[in-house]
Amino acid sequence: MTELHFFEKNAPILLSEIVETLGAHCAEGAVNDQMISDIAPISEAQSGQITFLDNPKYVEDLAQTSATAVLCSKRYVTKVPEGVIALEVKNPYQAFAQLSSLFYPQAMAPLPFFGDEGGISQAAHIHPTACIEEGVTIEPGASIGAGVEIGSGSVIGVNAVIGQGVRVGRSCHIGANVVLQHSLVGDYVILHPGVCSGQDGFGFAMSPMGHSKVPQIGRVIIQDHVEIGANTTIDRGANKDTVIGEGTKIDNQVQIGHNVEIGRHCVIVSQVGISGSSVLEDFVAIGGQAGVAGHIRIGMGAQIAAVSVAKDDLPAGGRYGGVPAKPVRQWFREMAALKKLTEKE
Amino acid sequence: MTELHFFEKNAPILLSEIVETLGAHCAEGAVNDQMISDIAPISEAQSGQITFLDNPKYVEDLAQTSATAVLCSKRYVTKVPEGVIALEVKNPYQAFAQLSSLFYPQAMAPLPFFGDEGGISQAAHIHPTACIEEGVTIEPGASIGAGVEIGSGSVIGVNAVIGQGVRVGRSCHIGANVVLQHSLVGDYVILHPGVCSGQDGFGFAMSPMGHSKVPQIGRVIIQDHVEIGANTTIDRGANKDTVIGEGTKIDNQVQIGHNVEIGRHCVIVSQVGISGSSVLEDFVAIGGQAGVAGHIRIGMGAQIAAVSVAKDDLPAGGRYGGVPAKPVRQWFREMAALKKLTEKE
Amino acid sequence: MTELHFFEKNAPILLSEIVETLGAHCAEGAVNDQMISDIAPISEAQSGQITFLDNPKYVEDLAQTSATAVLCSKRYVTKVPEGVIALEVKNPYQAFAQLSSLFYPQAMAPLPFFGDEGGISQAAHIHPTACIEEGVTIEPGASIGAGVEIGSGSVIGVNAVIGQGVRVGRSCHIGANVVLQHSLVGDYVILHPGVCSGQDGFGFAMSPMGHSKVPQIGRVIIQDHVEIGANTTIDRGANKDTVIGEGTKIDNQVQIGHNVEIGRHCVIVSQVGISGSSVLEDFVAIGGQAGVAGHIRIGMGAQIAAVSVAKDDLPAGGRYGGVPAKPVRQWFREMAALKKLTEKE
Repeated sequence: MTELHFFEKNAPILLSEIVETLGAHCAEGAVNDQMISDIAPISEAQSGQITFLDNPKYVEDLAQTSATAVLCSKRYVTKVPEGVIALEVKNPYQAFAQLSSLFYPQAMAPLPFFGDEGGISQAAHIHPTACIEEGVTIEPGASIGAGVEIGSGSVIGVNAVIGQGVRVGRSCHIGANVVLQHSLVGDYVILHPGVCSGQDGFGFAMSPMGHSKVPQIGRVIIQDHVEIGANTTIDRGANKDTVIGEGTKIDNQVQIGHNVEIGRHCVIVSQVGISGSSVLEDFVAIGGQAGVAGHIRIGMGAQIAAVSVAKDDLPAGGRYGGVPAKPVRQWFREMAALKKLTEKE
Repeated sequence: MTELHFFEKNAPILLSEIVETLGAHCAEGAVNDQMISDIAPISEAQSGQITFLDNPKYVEDLAQTSATAVLCSKRYVTKVPEGVIALEVKNPYQAFAQLSSLFYPQAMAPLPFFGDEGGISQAAHIHPTACIEEGVTIEPGASIGAGVEIGSGSVIGVNAVIGQGVRVGRSCHIGANVVLQHSLVGDYVILHPGVCSGQDGFGFAMSPMGHSKVPQIGRVIIQDHVEIGANTTIDRGANKDTVIGEGTKIDNQVQIGHNVEIGRHCVIVSQVGISGSSVLEDFVAIGGQAGVAGHIRIGMGAQIAAVSVAKDDLPAGGRYGGVPAKPVRQWFREMAALKKLTEKE
Repeated sequence: MTELHFFEKNAPILLSEIVETLGAHCAEGAVNDQMISDIAPISEAQSGQITFLDNPKYVEDLAQTSATAVLCSKRYVTKVPEGVIALEVKNPYQAFAQLSSLFYPQAMAPLPFFGDEGGISQAAHIHPTACIEEGVTIEPGASIGAGVEIGSGSVIGVNAVIGQGVRVGRSCHIGANVVLQHSLVGDYVILHPGVCSGQDGFGFAMSPMGHSKVPQIGRVIIQDHVEIGANTTIDRGANKDTVIGEGTKIDNQVQIGHNVEIGRHCVIVSQVGISGSSVLEDFVAIGGQAGVAGHIRIGMGAQIAAVSVAKDDLPAGGRYGGVPAKPVRQWFREMAALKKLTEKE
């Protein structure tokens, strides 16, 4: 990176301290009093910096790296070039994440947008019946509606809209231009800019005379430690609640329909759509642009590949892909068979 | 649902009154002076509550229900367990919609975000040349540009942006953070938060020297009784208008390109993309994540399955699926043939 | 179009002046002192107006047109009906673009939303440490954070949020409700409403104990003459920068992951998703709803069809389609083979 940095760096750090913090293994005597000035991707790391190898795609870059040290798993230790210190760890990406938080502790949660010292901006609009705990930051243009409650340590970003009656827990970061209605948000939740949560679900009783609106009277429950990406939309429940389970991470531009229940620690990549009343059990992972049909159940730990579509219930633990989603092996066989078919002709 | 409700409930209601309002049939003497306290989904309904059965997926829940009464069609009446009152109606979902509006009349349109008693907030920004009828609510942070006209009974949500010259009709709900430009909006229109309407369409004359912007001089016309979901984007026409026909319902995160003409009472599910200059005739229905190519015409009442892509004109009334979209039977045959092919090997 | 126009028209213009400006060819003596009052699409153009033919789909409309003149390529000159003046140009769409900018010069960049005469609104929130050059327009409700720099001639739309430390160059149009963080924006950039740029990328070190946030310390670099559509999201780099190259045009609701590098003059249609760390070389074109997997490289000038998914590196210059994307011929063969297979049965 070049001139302008947005985060303050906590550096340099002694390499020996890094090794100890991460519980890394290295050749005896390799680590002395080296200082590490920064972290960097493997293709760009310079002397004095530390990098990591996780994706085998970048093994070739390993041979060329100028980094002082590299975090890697056991199998790559022998491929680390001479003059570079190999730091063996079990999970290099996890170790790198931990290391990043040492160098850039500020970046563990979004910075305030406006940049003031906290407190409640004079340019925020706060309903007299709202209940704001101590130590809350509310930035300019944010609106806090009637009866809202916000827990201590939370930051409400510029122009965010916290609709009447919404609860936001403690230590949350609500991004700029987020709109919350009919939502109950736990603690340590991060909502990135443009998230809309709690608007009416898409419920209409259709007929040749036109379509009648079905009142949507449920809520959105966002549990602790959830993170939700920019411009993602979550509809409130029709006649029960839409629920996002503890620790679940959702990327940008995901659509979550009414009554959906998402378990704990799920991972949902960008542009996924989850149709109404479906259930994701804990630790489900869904790749980008995939879809989940309505009224189905995805079993615990199931993984759905990018751009695939789950049309029916999927058992726990499996890996699925295709349209409709099937076990990945079957999906691969179908693609291969189709290719072969054209070769015959 | 648990403690905190966002909507006031109009309850209890006499069951006999419900039966009469819905025109439901029931066994003689079944309905006396029972009071109904609430509506609920079939798996959660308790004594004193009323539920409905529409999706055959939930027939098993019917046998277990503790509801006092259940709305269902003729074929399920005999499956209603003893002690539960079967209310036979032609269209259970339509009846339930009607019932929901009795219990939760507030939920038929979005609530104001801020929660004040209506009127024009001191914290709204209103251009002196804007023309606001009586009985309009404008919430904090909303901006009403030069020459804008807003009809009586409409609500402009927190931080909504009504760009210069835009017209909004009567009894509309414009959600928080909506951005309208170059748009004419009819009466009884609901726009959920984050909708962007009337920005430049994607028009560039491409060349190896770079791409020249083609001025987009049309408008967006949103007719009466249209509802549009959160974060949906509608580009204004390039050299004519983009039109959303009366009574059409559009879900979240839908993209509608310049010059598109959508007929009356269409239903477009979330994450659909409709490319420029295409025409949807009346009562077209499009499933989630589907696509419509540019410059084509979808005939009246045609239905396109989720994640399918209409590449060419599609005749009225049919059901289509696949990439490219073909009659659904042909699509199913192709999927079956592919599966069979892999079984042979 | 009907009564209300949003753009002032610069008309009438002498046809002879148009012919000269565009360098068009026409039959000798055809052009005298005709005045042109407006531009219009071929199916709607009236006497006194000028239109163009580019898409062969509209050849039938050519025979019926009432336009005074039509821009077309050599091959269609003979199909122009008697009484209509054929203006032969090499690239009719490019010529029409140029013509549109003559009639509607205002429409070459978004209009201010509020409609005031420029300057800095009293209702904007500007941090005392922000640095605003002369001739900047800042509309009501916009927030300019600490240390922000904005170049002369730029317009910051209503309720846009320019987060602390962001740089916006000269002659930019930042739409209403845009949110910029950790971003450096060049000159002549247009961001349509609801764009979110610079929020945290989706980086988590996953584990059965939950998922640890990986700090995202990079930036977003948006080079000169870029245009980005409504509600598009661009994550900042994880440990390097996300880059959008000069002259690249991005449509609505596109998702661009962390560390992505997009070259110069690329064209990316709506609802495309580009996964983290992928590289698009110059002049890449990607159709609507397509996807690009992470950590791959798309060669210069490659074209990816709508709803296709690039899973691996794609060589420069080719045309690709399907899931996964392959050369279009192979894709067409596969679709045909599948269809044939069902016909046999």
